[in-house]
Amino acid sequence: MAQVLYDFTAEPGNNELTVREGETITITNQGVGGGWIEAQNSRGEVGLVPEDYIEVRENVEHVAAPAAAHAPDLSFFDAFAAPANNTTQNQASNGKDPWSVWNQDTTGGSSNNWAAQPEGTITGKSAAPDPWGSTAQSHPQAYQGPGAEDDEWDDEWDDVKSNSESGDGGAIQRGGATGSSMKISLNKFPGFSKSGPELFLLCKQPPKGKEKITIYMGEVGPVWSYPEAQLDCVVADPKKGTKMYGLKSYIEYQVIPNTTNRPVNHRYKHFDWLYERLLDKFGSAIPIPSLPDKQVTGRFEEEFIKMRMERLQGWMTRMCRHPVVSNSDVFQLFLTYKDEKDWKTGKRKAEKDEDVGVMIFSSIEPEAPDLDPIEVEQKCDQFSRFTKAMDDGVKDLLTVGQEHWKRCTGPLPKEYQRIGKAFQNLSSVFTSSGYQGEATLTDAMTSAGKTYEEIAQMVAEQPRKDLHFLMENNNEYKGLLGCFPDTIGVHKAAIEKVKEGDRLVAASKITPQDKVTMAKRVSTMSYALQAEMNHFHSNRIYDYNRVMQLYLEEQVKFYETIAEKLKQAHSQFTTM
Amino acid sequence: MAQVLYDFTAEPGNNELTVREGETITITNQGVGGGWIEAQNSRGEVGLVPEDYIEVRENVEHVAAPAAAHAPDLSFFDAFAAPANNTTQNQASNGKDPWSVWNQDTTGGSSNNWAAQPEGTITGKSAAPDPWGSTAQSHPQAYQGPGAEDDEWDDEWDDVKSNSESGDGGAIQRGGATGSSMKISLNKFPGFSKSGPELFLLCKQPPKGKEKITIYMGEVGPVWSYPEAQLDCVVADPKKGTKMYGLKSYIEYQVIPNTTNRPVNHRYKHFDWLYERLLDKFGSAIPIPSLPDKQVTGRFEEEFIKMRMERLQGWMTRMCRHPVVSNSDVFQLFLTYKDEKDWKTGKRKAEKDEDVGVMIFSSIEPEAPDLDPIEVEQKCDQFSRFTKAMDDGVKDLLTVGQEHWKRCTGPLPKEYQRIGKAFQNLSSVFTSSGYQGEATLTDAMTSAGKTYEEIAQMVAEQPRKDLHFLMENNNEYKGLLGCFPDTIGVHKAAIEKVKEGDRLVAASKITPQDKVTMAKRVSTMSYALQAEMNHFHSNRIYDYNRVMQLYLEEQVKFYETIAEKLKQAHSQFTTM
Repeated sequence: MAQVLYDFTAEPGNNELTVREGETITITNQGVGGGWIEAQNSRGEVGLVPEDYIEVRENVEHVAAPAAAHAPDLSFFDAFAAPANNTTQNQASNGKDPWSVWNQDTTGGSSNNWAAQPEGTITGKSAAPDPWGSTAQSHPQAYQGPGAEDDEWDDEWDDVKSNSESGDGGAIQRGGATGSSMKISLNKFPGFSKSGPELFLLCKQPPKGKEKITIYMGEVGPVWSYPEAQLDCVVADPKKGTKMYGLKSYIEYQVIPNTTNRPVNHRYKHFDWLYERLLDKFGSAIPIPSLPDKQVTGRFEEEFIKMRMERLQGWMTRMCRHPVVSNSDVFQLFLTYKDEKDWKTGKRKAEKDEDVGVMIFSSIEPEAPDLDPIEVEQKCDQFSRFTKAMDDGVKDLLTVGQEHWKRCTGPLPKEYQRIGKAFQNLSSVFTSSGYQGEATLTDAMTSAGKTYEEIAQMVAEQPRKDLHFLMENNNEYKGLLGCFPDTIGVHKAAIEKVKEGDRLVAASKITPQDKVTMAKRVSTMSYALQAEMNHFHSNRIYDYNRVMQLYLEEQVKFYETIAEKLKQAHSQFTTM
Repeated sequence: MAQVLYDFTAEPGNNELTVREGETITITNQGVGGGWIEAQNSRGEVGLVPEDYIEVRENVEHVAAPAAAHAPDLSFFDAFAAPANNTTQNQASNGKDPWSVWNQDTTGGSSNNWAAQPEGTITGKSAAPDPWGSTAQSHPQAYQGPGAEDDEWDDEWDDVKSNSESGDGGAIQRGGATGSSMKISLNKFPGFSKSGPELFLLCKQPPKGKEKITIYMGEVGPVWSYPEAQLDCVVADPKKGTKMYGLKSYIEYQVIPNTTNRPVNHRYKHFDWLYERLLDKFGSAIPIPSLPDKQVTGRFEEEFIKMRMERLQGWMTRMCRHPVVSNSDVFQLFLTYKDEKDWKTGKRKAEKDEDVGVMIFSSIEPEAPDLDPIEVEQKCDQFSRFTKAMDDGVKDLLTVGQEHWKRCTGPLPKEYQRIGKAFQNLSSVFTSSGYQGEATLTDAMTSAGKTYEEIAQMVAEQPRKDLHFLMENNNEYKGLLGCFPDTIGVHKAAIEKVKEGDRLVAASKITPQDKVTMAKRVSTMSYALQAEMNHFHSNRIYDYNRVMQLYLEEQVKFYETIAEKLKQAHSQFTTM
């Protein structure tokens, strides 16, 4: 017997069992592995349930302790469906509309992580499930602890994971573009205070002989050093594999970089591993957007896989486009590892990387004079205001787009269809009149009716041709913008530390030289933030230009086609 | 003190008082005249109430008896708003949508007057308010009794009305295109049985020396004799007048026939008088559509007057187009009376016309051999089936159109507006970025946003440009088709009488010669019906061709304009 701790909604066709918080279930097979147990509910239904969603009556310790190490493979199976008390959310995410989960986030107005952002250092999080209260609404996919990635199927992976559990002091919470709330133990969450900006501001001397990240002064201000050839990659050819004797399945994608043109295979969990590494390493300086939402569900598996692949492609493209990220060892490893051994070696190395968190700033070398701390603060505030405003704007557009999508695929085509049917119906009544010389009119009316049925079809299909890309782009930006409060937070914390300089010197906590070093280093941080903002702006201008053009182009085609069809229909009536 | 017998909804700004059935009110002035009394309700509100809507406690007889003679001028003041228990209906008719009242009729499926149509003679109606039960739903504007037209303001009119109260045996219930149910005393309703087809079938000899209505054999079968020049008229220039010392107001329209090109003035009540005369005279042979619904209300008086005028124009055009109706003395009088004296004389003459009801058939002379009664019945059944089917089709289209209208003027433009606002909003956020070289994108996005606001406006205005005419045409046809059950009923009753021929001869109720005469006369009736159906078909083909062309033409323009606007918006983005 076991008690269910958190709601869990089964993925259809995946041998899973939906359970609700507080429910009592009977464990039928504890040896399934992979973080899963087989259980039976009171209605006699049997299926797999994530081990750490339940509490076994006999021995609480037994289940709670290894849960982190044996958590289910959550990366693919969408185990964390919305809790049962939010039924509309459940319905929406099962609907045809892939953006249904966005809505939750956007209807509530401004994102909570903007409001919750403290001025100074970010404090550690408690270990309770759903520790952020209302903030969890917009942070559903917040840091899950490395254990969540575990999988019996791959022993080597286990080793790696237990390694990484200890070290990653620089990890910050993921800025969330995702929707449904997730309840999972968060006791591994690394508090920011342990690795705040002072680690960098006050470190005795920057590590020697490591790779440098240069910032140049460009026309628009500080800019990263961009490579001559833009890295790019294709994510393609998803293939299904199975594990656990066919009980569970996974998808493997081909990733083909334009540098080698040689495909490498990766599962979603590998992408997730990459994401964690990038977040650890660059998160303090560069917003690393979340991977495509784990909650994305399609009505059919094919649709789901296609959507996930499309979004992984988008994520990879954005990472490839970033001069600092794309040039990093870990990213290059992901794209170009030669064989299993190469991959494993690279992975271990990446996980042992000590230049993570705020220490990334120690690699950065601006080729420009130091900035005054006041200017640093002004810049930081300006970026904060802009990203907050853009976040609101993007969410507004997503909400509007979501509603428009619903109308275009729901009531509107039905109405056009009914208009079409009404014309055709009247036409067939006319045909029955027995009056001579009616054929021209009835043929024309039938044709007009069919035209409106075609228009109905067009209306229903149109959002996938234009609105889809507008939504995807804005969803990506929502994810990206969701990272800024954390990134900017690191800068604000550093600025606060510098402001405290005199007091710290007076209290003999630091030396006057330390104070000078801190001001110099916060200047470096500011250059990094400015370079990143300029990177963001230039990408934003490119992306919005492209997506607006695409949207309007398709809209023009759409309306022109309708006009053309109606012109055809019109021409069949007799001119009198 | 008085008891309210029927619901009455005040016309805003008309000094009227809304009262509900069963309510007790205090009469404050019984001498207002014109069929109105001034009363005060329990909330202290004072206003005018139609005299025959109330029952004075002291003397029931006093109020009930003269009510018919002193009924209010209901022709204009829209006194018969929907009963209070139908709130949606009330709301709808107060909304912007002029067709809201149609819906009631159409959503219920097939019209009740089709189902209620008896096979044989139509029996007289009881005098109770709302005497048809559910049928009243589709016969709200059913025959109100001539007293309803009364008005103290015009004494001459009174005389006429009391004359007409006795004689019009041929009046049949109005086929209803109208919506809201009306409760009014119907004790003057002339039962059909008193003036059934036998009046014509068995009349000793057709009256001599009167005008003849000839039916020719045309290409499509029996046809009316059409004039060389089509009569037409313009209804224009509505002017407001007042009466009862400014307490109540009315609208006078100019009617200008193309024959004289000289305007004559008519109030709605005059149109209604004409309608009654035409219904009396031709209703058994020719469907005389109801006047535009008295219930039509606009949010503003101007809108209401415009809509009523447009519909009076449509009604007059249809009457002008009918070769028999347009050629009649009463119709010509209405269009071309020279002065007040001419008008009064003509009116008296028209009201004394004895060739009304089924006797109209005695004027009809088909230039074709007599038809076999079996063929007569087949034709009649065919027309009955067709008109019923078309009635259903027309109502279906009206329902669909009504819903489409609502969407196009309600949620849809709001959505386009919000899309436009979201683009503009994002654009103004971008403008605040401080990044160089942003202007092209932000200008283009603002422009795209404004374009969607323009599209919102276009969408909201479009129904008035195209759907309006489609709806008006179908509404007219709904009214016309609503008359067919009665018209066809007269024919079916006649056919039944002929079928009874042998039995009647055997019972010595009629002579064998009478039986032959009856068969001959039912053949005449059939020619009339066929001529009328052919007239209907030819008009229908013309009308639907015209209105579908207009609709599609405007739709093409609409979509082309949108495409053009979006193309413009698209061109402002940079091609990269």
